[in-house]
Formats: sequence, C-alpha cells, structure tokens
Amino acid sequence: MTQETFLNQGDGRATLAQIAHDASVSMSTVSKVLNARTGVSTATRVRVEDLLVSHGYNRRGSEQSNSTLIELVFNNIDSIWSLELIRGVERVARQNGLSVILTESGDRHSPSPDWIKGVLQRQPLGVILVFSDLSDDHKRQLNTRNIPFVVVDPAGDPAPDVPSIGSANWSGGLLATRHLIELGHRRIGIITGPEDMLCSLARLSGYRSALEAAGIQFDPALVAIGDFGRESGVARGHELLAQADRPTAIFASSDLQAIGLYAATRALGLQVPRDLSIVGYDDLPVASWVDPALTTVRQPLVEMAEEATRLVLKLRTNGHAENIRLDLAVNLVHRGSTAQLNG
Amino acid sequence: MTQETFLNQGDGRATLAQIAHDASVSMSTVSKVLNARTGVSTATRVRVEDLLVSHGYNRRGSEQSNSTLIELVFNNIDSIWSLELIRGVERVARQNGLSVILTESGDRHSPSPDWIKGVLQRQPLGVILVFSDLSDDHKRQLNTRNIPFVVVDPAGDPAPDVPSIGSANWSGGLLATRHLIELGHRRIGIITGPEDMLCSLARLSGYRSALEAAGIQFDPALVAIGDFGRESGVARGHELLAQADRPTAIFASSDLQAIGLYAATRALGLQVPRDLSIVGYDDLPVASWVDPALTTVRQPLVEMAEEATRLVLKLRTNGHAENIRLDLAVNLVHRGSTAQLNG
Repeated sequence: MTQETFLNQGDGRATLAQIAHDASVSMSTVSKVLNARTGVSTATRVRVEDLLVSHGYNRRGSEQSNSTLIELVFNNIDSIWSLELIRGVERVARQNGLSVILTESGDRHSPSPDWIKGVLQRQPLGVILVFSDLSDDHKRQLNTRNIPFVVVDPAGDPAPDVPSIGSANWSGGLLATRHLIELGHRRIGIITGPEDMLCSLARLSGYRSALEAAGIQFDPALVAIGDFGRESGVARGHELLAQADRPTAIFASSDLQAIGLYAATRALGLQVPRDLSIVGYDDLPVASWVDPALTTVRQPLVEMAEEATRLVLKLRTNGHAENIRLDLAVNLVHRGSTAQLNG
Repeated sequence: MTQETFLNQGDGRATLAQIAHDASVSMSTVSKVLNARTGVSTATRVRVEDLLVSHGYNRRGSEQSNSTLIELVFNNIDSIWSLELIRGVERVARQNGLSVILTESGDRHSPSPDWIKGVLQRQPLGVILVFSDLSDDHKRQLNTRNIPFVVVDPAGDPAPDVPSIGSANWSGGLLATRHLIELGHRRIGIITGPEDMLCSLARLSGYRSALEAAGIQFDPALVAIGDFGRESGVARGHELLAQADRPTAIFASSDLQAIGLYAATRALGLQVPRDLSIVGYDDLPVASWVDPALTTVRQPLVEMAEEATRLVLKLRTNGHAENIRLDLAVNLVHRGSTAQLNG
C-alpha cells in the first residue's frame, strides 16, 4: 500500500526512478528501503538513502499526513519520573488529535536495532527520545523518511544538529547548593547522578560553582556517585554520613535519591532537618508527600515533554524550527527538609 | 487502501455485496462504515453493522495481521498507579514485538465519541481499557471490526460478555480488616474509594464481613467516602479522627489515601502506628518509601496488566478464550504502619 502511494506521486516517482538508476538497483529495491522491508543489504540501503538525501527526495505526501501517531521512546519506564513525561506528551498529542505510541528500548543510551526497524514500519509523525541519543545511521534512516525527532534531557552531549529539550541543570545545582550555603552550611555533600550523563555533570558543576562563589573549599570526599535511583540514595547516604567529619547538608541530585537518603538518615538515628538538611531535584509529586516535605529543585518535566512534542510537530509541518535546542528554567521549592545550621 | 484490501478478498467481497444489498446501500457506504469514514448517518451505520454481525462477516485478513499496535486507554494517567499498568502492558507487548498506543479518554467511566472514531481508524490489534466500560454502541463498533477489548479493574459491574481482569477486592478488604482485628483493634475506620466503583464496594464489603466474623458491630460513623486520591485521605482522615470516640485503626482503601492519612495524623499530633494503625491498598513503590513503611494489601497491578494483554492477544488470535473474566489474588504486606492496640 505504502509503495503504491508514492508510485502514484508524479514527481516522486520520477525522482525514485532516477535514484534506482543511479544506485543500479530496481524500483522495488528503492521501495523496500523506503518502507523498511527486508531483503536489502546494509550497503545497498545506505547507498539508496544517501541518494534520497542528495536528491532532496521529500516524502511529504498523502501518506505522511495520514499518520496520527507520535512515538515516545524510553530506555525504561520503571521510574515514576517517566509518568511526568508521558503526561506532557499525551497532553499536547491530544490537543492535536494525535495518539502516543510508547516504546521501551531497553538500552540506556541508544535504542536497539529492532527499534529503528519498527519505527520505519509504524511511520509516526515524529519521535521523542528520553535520555537517549541516536547513532548516525539511525539519524539518517529517520531523516530519509522525514520523521523528525527530538531528545528530552539528553544523556550525553548531543550533536549540534540534534533537536533537544533540556532544563537548566547547572543552574539547578547552583540554586540547591546556594540555598544550603545561605542556611549556614559549609560541609555540604552531593550524591550525583550517573557519571556519564551530561545532566549529572551539569548539576555537580553548579554545586562546585556555588561553593567556589562562597569561598568554600571543594572536598572530593563529599562527592558520592549515584544513579538517580532510591537505593543509591540509601547506600551513598550511609557512606557520606559515616565520615568522621560528616556533612551537615546533602544535595541529592534527584528526589528518589533524597528519599533514599531519608531512610539512611533515620537508620543512623539522625533527624531531617535538625541533623541533616537535604535538597532533592525534580519535584515529583512524592516530594511533598514525605515527612518532612522535601525541599527540591523543580524541574518542569511535564512542560519539557510538552515543549518537545510541540517542537517535533513544528519540525514535521515546517521542516525546520527557529530554536531546536532549548533549556527550560528550574526553581527552588523550599519545604521542610532544609534548616539553618545549628551552631 | 483499506478498502481495496477487503474488496480483493473473494468471500469477503461477496458477503459485503450481500450486506450492501440487504441494507439498501452502496458498497462504498459499507466500506465507509468498516473504515470509520465520515458521510454515513448513525442509523445507516448501525444497520450495516448489525448485518455485518448477523452475516458473521470476519475481517481477519491481510490487513488485520499488519497491525502491531495495542491500545491502552486510561480515563486519565495522572496517578502513579497508571505507571504500573503501563509497565505490564508494555512488557507483554514487547515480548510479542508489538507497540503500545496510549490514549487518555478524559471521562471517568466510558471513553468519548472521538475516541472510538480514532480507534477504528488506528485499527489496533486490541484495546485494553482501564477503569472504563464501553457503551453497547462502542462494543458493536469494535466487534464488527474484530478488535477485541479487555477491561482492567472495572469501575462498575461489566456485562457478562465483557472480558475483564480484576483482583480479589473483597478478599483484600477482608485481609486488611482481619489483620487489624488480630492486632486487637475494635474501632476500625475505613476510607473507601468512589461509591460508584465496584472495587470500592467490594473492599467495603470485605471490611464489613471481617468485622461481622469477629462479632464487631458495624458503625456507619466509621465509614468515610473517599476517591482513592491523596487529598481525600487527608480530608476524610481529619473527619474520622475528629470524632470523640475516634478509631484506633483505619483501612485506607488505597496507598495514596493512606499517605494522605499519614499527613492528617501528623497534623493532629498523633503517631503512626502508636496512636493509629493504618493499612493501605495497592502496594505501589511509594508504600515502602514512607516512614513508617506502609502495611498494605498488595494488588498485582503489573501482573493484571500483563494478563489483560495476554487475554486480548488470545482473543485476537483465536476469537475466544477459555476464561474471559479473571480476578488475580491479593495478599497482605505487613510493614511498620500497624501495631498491637495498646490497652
């Protein structure tokens, strides 16, 4: 069916015939490449795709406008963090009469080979990737089919041509740490996210900058590497608090790590915030449910997902957008888990 | 395209010609009905659909097997409860090489008219509805197109022909209450879910049965109607605890209500479990994060969603299943929020 659609497009057909000729393959092979069907070697596929790009072949046609699907890809959806992003994408999709396809890629940084095959067959209007980057080959395959993609909160440093929506992670780290400094704290620990994620490094860097601006010496012994999950908050919290000269405040880099840190604190017979001030990051609903309610850096996850969805739709409709790299602002929400340092 | 597919099926075409004849409409109108296109009056659509059913018209053909989508419909996805169900559906979908479409219907009990139109156009392999029931018209429209559907945790009493996966709500209410009775409690309150949901009524009924079996008089003053959300746990908790002869234990009917009840208890200067034992329902991840960790009835949400997905695939493949109405078992998870009654 897909094949017939483009064969009936006058101009498209001429271009495709030329491409088949230039690539020394049949029209049927070109069609197989476009529709992600089997029976084409990788070398042939790449050759045909390159020709499609160099001929400026544009599939924007009847078939494209039929799609009412936006694809949202997670490496995994286990965290309650995911739900905030799903809500944002779903909201903008619904406003535009579209549906959301949810896929879980399983890999932490880039989707699996099976995934790209599935996408090309599903032909969504666009793709939103959470915490993932795409290989050059995957990018070419999507570009060739005019399927735009946007990365939310990139895990690494995406290439400049990759549209992405993030949040001001460095500012967030700075805000959290400055808040603790203003409360009189000097021994301030940090539990970071995974070392290989750009957002973790940015938050850590914001923490260091705040210390430096206040004339507080950076102490590597107060930095513990976490993974954003609750369990790492428990484990790294125990390590930080076991030190002879233990910190009086900890910036936990995620709400889940902060909640894990609450447990470590209780297990050691310490009280929050009397004995330890804690700042989280994200402001998930659970942040205001725990006791004491968590002081945290609010990252506008729902809004980030909404913005990513609007961007992918704009790229789909116009082929371009004014700004393809945006960071949304964060702010500190002061609740009960931080207090003035006593003595 | 869809039209051509069935017109090319020999038998199907003959049947459709007969249906067009019997309904006194053109083949094109029959095609419009099948493909959910506009330009057909409701009366004509219903007449054609009834004839399709009575002729046993079966669309199982090339076109059907092309679908790789399962549609998961929520009235809204705001609650972290939703994430557990998404995970279950996503897991079984991935095992079968399928993708999940997520839609939010907005209405609490049955999806909107726009939704059914979208489904018929998207042609998913099957539909899983959370907390919703379908109108007879929606059922007919899905049946006519051989799109099976399964309801998870039905809100009302679904008709006997509606496949559904629930959990043993009555047993859950009984287990929670019996646990409190065994700890010596006699004044046991309950915060229920919405009155018009069958699962709420079943849990309340289990609560009453446990009291009765222990020879404890049922007291309507100890029953507060909630809505499963955290806020109703706060508000109804304050009401129950303001009574002169206040309860020493409360069964909260959902983890979120239990967490709201924690806040009400703290606000009144009472301690859990010393002054009040609390049992939740669901066993969401957050149940073990709060302090004290919540004693709760574990409802296997992920497994329920997995079972619903397997059922919808079985109905799609075989046209029937041995058991279309299943309840999964629940069990009590004893943590720190319940204790022996003092004195």
